[in-house]
Amino acid sequence: SVRVNGFVCKNPMEVNADDFFKAAALDKPRVTNKVGSNVTLINVMQIAGLNTLGISIARIDYAPLGQNPPHTHPRATEILTVLEGTLYVGFVTSNQPAPNRNKFLSKVLNKGDVFVFPVGLIHFQFNPNPHKPAVAIAALSSQNPGAITIANAVFGSDPQISDDVLAKAFQVEKNTIDWLQAQFWENNHN
Amino acid sequence: SVRVNGFVCKNPMEVNADDFFKAAALDKPRVTNKVGSNVTLINVMQIAGLNTLGISIARIDYAPLGQNPPHTHPRATEILTVLEGTLYVGFVTSNQPAPNRNKFLSKVLNKGDVFVFPVGLIHFQFNPNPHKPAVAIAALSSQNPGAITIANAVFGSDPQISDDVLAKAFQVEKNTIDWLQAQFWENNHN
Amino acid sequence: SVRVNGFVCKNPMEVNADDFFKAAALDKPRVTNKVGSNVTLINVMQIAGLNTLGISIARIDYAPLGQNPPHTHPRATEILTVLEGTLYVGFVTSNQPAPNRNKFLSKVLNKGDVFVFPVGLIHFQFNPNPHKPAVAIAALSSQNPGAITIANAVFGSDPQISDDVLAKAFQVEKNTIDWLQAQFWENNHN
Amino acid sequence: SVRVNGFVCKNPMEVNADDFFKAAALDKPRVTNKVGSNVTLINVMQIAGLNTLGISIARIDYAPLGQNPPHTHPRATEILTVLEGTLYVGFVTSNQPAPNRNKFLSKVLNKGDVFVFPVGLIHFQFNPNPHKPAVAIAALSSQNPGAITIANAVFGSDPQISDDVLAKAFQVEKNTIDWLQAQFWENNHN
Amino acid sequence: SVRVNGFVCKNPMEVNADDFFKAAALDKPRVTNKVGSNVTLINVMQIAGLNTLGISIARIDYAPLGQNPPHTHPRATEILTVLEGTLYVGFVTSNQPAPNRNKFLSKVLNKGDVFVFPVGLIHFQFNPNPHKPAVAIAALSSQNPGAITIANAVFGSDPQISDDVLAKAFQVEKNTIDWLQAQFWENNHN
Amino acid sequence: SVRVNGFVCKNPMEVNADDFFKAAALDKPRVTNKVGSNVTLINVMQIAGLNTLGISIARIDYAPLGQNPPHTHPRATEILTVLEGTLYVGFVTSNQPAPNRNKFLSKVLNKGDVFVFPVGLIHFQFNPNPHKPAVAIAALSSQNPGAITIANAVFGSDPQISDDVLAKAFQVEKNTIDWLQAQFWENNHN
Repeated sequence: SVRVNGFVCKNPMEVNADDFFKAAALDKPRVTNKVGSNVTLINVMQIAGLNTLGISIARIDYAPLGQNPPHTHPRATEILTVLEGTLYVGFVTSNQPAPNRNKFLSKVLNKGDVFVFPVGLIHFQFNPNPHKPAVAIAALSSQNPGAITIANAVFGSDPQISDDVLAKAFQVEKNTIDWLQAQFWENNHN
Repeated sequence: SVRVNGFVCKNPMEVNADDFFKAAALDKPRVTNKVGSNVTLINVMQIAGLNTLGISIARIDYAPLGQNPPHTHPRATEILTVLEGTLYVGFVTSNQPAPNRNKFLSKVLNKGDVFVFPVGLIHFQFNPNPHKPAVAIAALSSQNPGAITIANAVFGSDPQISDDVLAKAFQVEKNTIDWLQAQFWENNHN
Repeated sequence: SVRVNGFVCKNPMEVNADDFFKAAALDKPRVTNKVGSNVTLINVMQIAGLNTLGISIARIDYAPLGQNPPHTHPRATEILTVLEGTLYVGFVTSNQPAPNRNKFLSKVLNKGDVFVFPVGLIHFQFNPNPHKPAVAIAALSSQNPGAITIANAVFGSDPQISDDVLAKAFQVEKNTIDWLQAQFWENNHN
Repeated sequence: SVRVNGFVCKNPMEVNADDFFKAAALDKPRVTNKVGSNVTLINVMQIAGLNTLGISIARIDYAPLGQNPPHTHPRATEILTVLEGTLYVGFVTSNQPAPNRNKFLSKVLNKGDVFVFPVGLIHFQFNPNPHKPAVAIAALSSQNPGAITIANAVFGSDPQISDDVLAKAFQVEKNTIDWLQAQFWENNHN
Repeated sequence: SVRVNGFVCKNPMEVNADDFFKAAALDKPRVTNKVGSNVTLINVMQIAGLNTLGISIARIDYAPLGQNPPHTHPRATEILTVLEGTLYVGFVTSNQPAPNRNKFLSKVLNKGDVFVFPVGLIHFQFNPNPHKPAVAIAALSSQNPGAITIANAVFGSDPQISDDVLAKAFQVEKNTIDWLQAQFWENNHN
Repeated sequence: SVRVNGFVCKNPMEVNADDFFKAAALDKPRVTNKVGSNVTLINVMQIAGLNTLGISIARIDYAPLGQNPPHTHPRATEILTVLEGTLYVGFVTSNQPAPNRNKFLSKVLNKGDVFVFPVGLIHFQFNPNPHKPAVAIAALSSQNPGAITIANAVFGSDPQISDDVLAKAFQVEKNTIDWLQAQFWENNHN
């Protein structure tokens, strides 16, 4: 079979609407994880017809006080709108230009608000409401945006990064790093 | 002021969260037009921080039996999910490869379903329910995707295209073209 | 065999000049179709060496009063020059920015004139001379630009688009749509 | 005024068909230069509407035994078709992969033949007919492809490249280089 | 003055070799910071002629036991070679595909070894030698790659990210976050 | 096996650090060729993990009075820094804009200086020191930049370019061309 971009490129004679479709993908609330969120991403793995087309879409569920923890998308900008509840969101700029390094830009979003997380920057969403869940729809400018949850990648990698390196990088004792590396770092992107 | 891509590139010292934010953009039902729809697009015109980032997002309202009529986006693929109601959607492939020309791929979408309209192809959404409105969220792979509503561009251009040309192209009498060109072609992208 | 972009990528040891060549491709007048034109496109299907190189070339023959009817190229800008005869050409802009929607920009071209049709916009060429044919050379900024003839895609798709949808979109009676859908929509890109 | 890509981006309200048009650009034979050719390129300098659109077109006139001497386009692939006469054309591949270095791929083209010169490779066209001129239309995959005539750039630069360097690079005596540098290297791209 | 991409595009008549040159940029050892490194990046800010050209180069100095701490480049892949000493380097993959999440790929590099850090992934270099400094040359696939030092962006942003959010994200007590946020997070990219 | 871009795309489960690594690649002086240089390029052929990542790195050795002769990279900009010795470097601009054609921009580089050779332009480096070798590190903005050594491609192609064509192009007698074509044109990119 012919592949483009690593994915099967179906014979045009056999392409049909199902190649551009995913049923019941984003309507249902989902169980949230330890940090209180669950990202349901529809990308080229779920819809083969997205291959080469540069976009994907996600539903994000947030438990009360839940968060989609600090993470980056190495290959996509994200645009998000709130469907239900309230979200406190933000991103941190890079180390340039001096002296304007690592600015934290944040906003409280209500239903219908739209916010943009530029490609590659560390960002998060947090549901500040202790009683009600929140729901957002997010779109990403890649068929396969990738996600790097900062804590998971730094402290939960397999194998672990040397605790000497991390202790110095994070200015803490090695046993703090060891403790962090011993935790369970649950993925919230399913 | 510095411009990138034709848009003002704000001094990094003065950038703030509002440059990546649009309040109350997509939560409210909107009055639909003559064909029974209303597209509320949040692109680089509404959120300056989208400049160079390659994505935008829209809410589409559909009246009962309303439609977002056949149109193309010259610079974007669209991915859509239904928030409320039901939509009959589809797109037509190009004239290649023979003999597989102009295939119409369609689907009935319910709440939570996701569908993809590849860049540049003619597509539409129609709300088949005679009693209830429908709502969708769509994302587009461009900060400024553009929209060409086929009927409006062909029969409602300013000035009008020669009726000689259109009569032959559409295999109808010139007075049919003249009648079509005399109609009011309302835009549903606001 | 290795494929790049879905096309065979020949072993460099075996590449030769024929991989970049097509004989007698664009010199001969060709029989025009029902709307009075015939597009002879030399793209990556005809010249394998064009793969990844982003360009193609075409000869277009126009019968007296013939036209290359309103169409778009979803992946290419077109630049055209007239070799013989006269052409009335034009394109319609998208629905942005208001109030400048759907402007029709047209020109009468004589031998040696050059005109540009920007990517994704609806455009056509018409030979206004009732006695003489016309010929043009066009180049397109893609190895596989695609073509969507508006009337064919809207009224001649397989299967047909619902006449309910089209009647409302084009502001005509359903039986007008049914009549249009019953016509033969001949392709002029061979 | 707003600029995109270094070129003025006209107010959409004021754009008209002339921004996409160049009259009488490619129909007339032109006087050829010392090497027997003349390239008439219509790019973004001549048609402002080409800005960002990635294509340009040229007419090339060849005197009997004239040539468009070995050159490269640093930003474009070229596709060429012969309108009149005969051309001997070719390009040389790069130094990879060994042992397949610097292969010369050539072809004699007659009217209507099409040939492709891949981006950045050294290529030429030569009219082998001692009595008749030749004419070609070429399209290039850039709004501003650039041209580097090898002999002119190497031996006719301003200021001159050190003759020590060139003598060793071309394995000739320094006085041969000096003689070459003393010649007049006429440009054939106007 | 004309700008392209936000940077001044000099009049071609006035361009000279200095626009493509930076003197004495990468030869001298530099004082390392608190984490024991110093990145000297030559990008479009230092060499204006790099504008639009998609590359930059850096020298990185490492003190004994110094590190270039975990960071990402949102817009560039990095390729690095060791000039002096030894480096323990690595990167962590993203959370896809399951169950292959967050793999840590590492290597000890000696003089002349080459290693690649793919775009957007968290990576670091560490000099394991307690007595000798190390030096590397790195190239990045962007004229302005950006750098996000993870610890600085997460714990040293201005203003600070809510400690509620970070405590949950990093599975630690809020006072640990408060302590981290009270530290001085020194930038090592100058 | 899955291929992307013509190269094997390894199963993510089996990827390891060696896929991003090349040992002892750039530390050792290498024997220089007839023109006195040797380019050791580490590209996607040497490090499979570079596939799609758009960068490569090279060490260049120069004998006393040796040169990396005039050449172009059809797919990459080059940024170079001197590690040892002195280099006289330069590039020639294209034939635009008139009257600013074929400007030669040159510089003498010492250890630690950085210089940029824009994509597709003819450039060289020369070691003016009759006694000492020189060494440089260069990075290129492509995983497979290609190299076209001008003299080799023009006079050493296989088969040879017609001496009629070259004699006219270079304004010399045919026997000069024949003599040049009879030389051995050694490649310095290994």
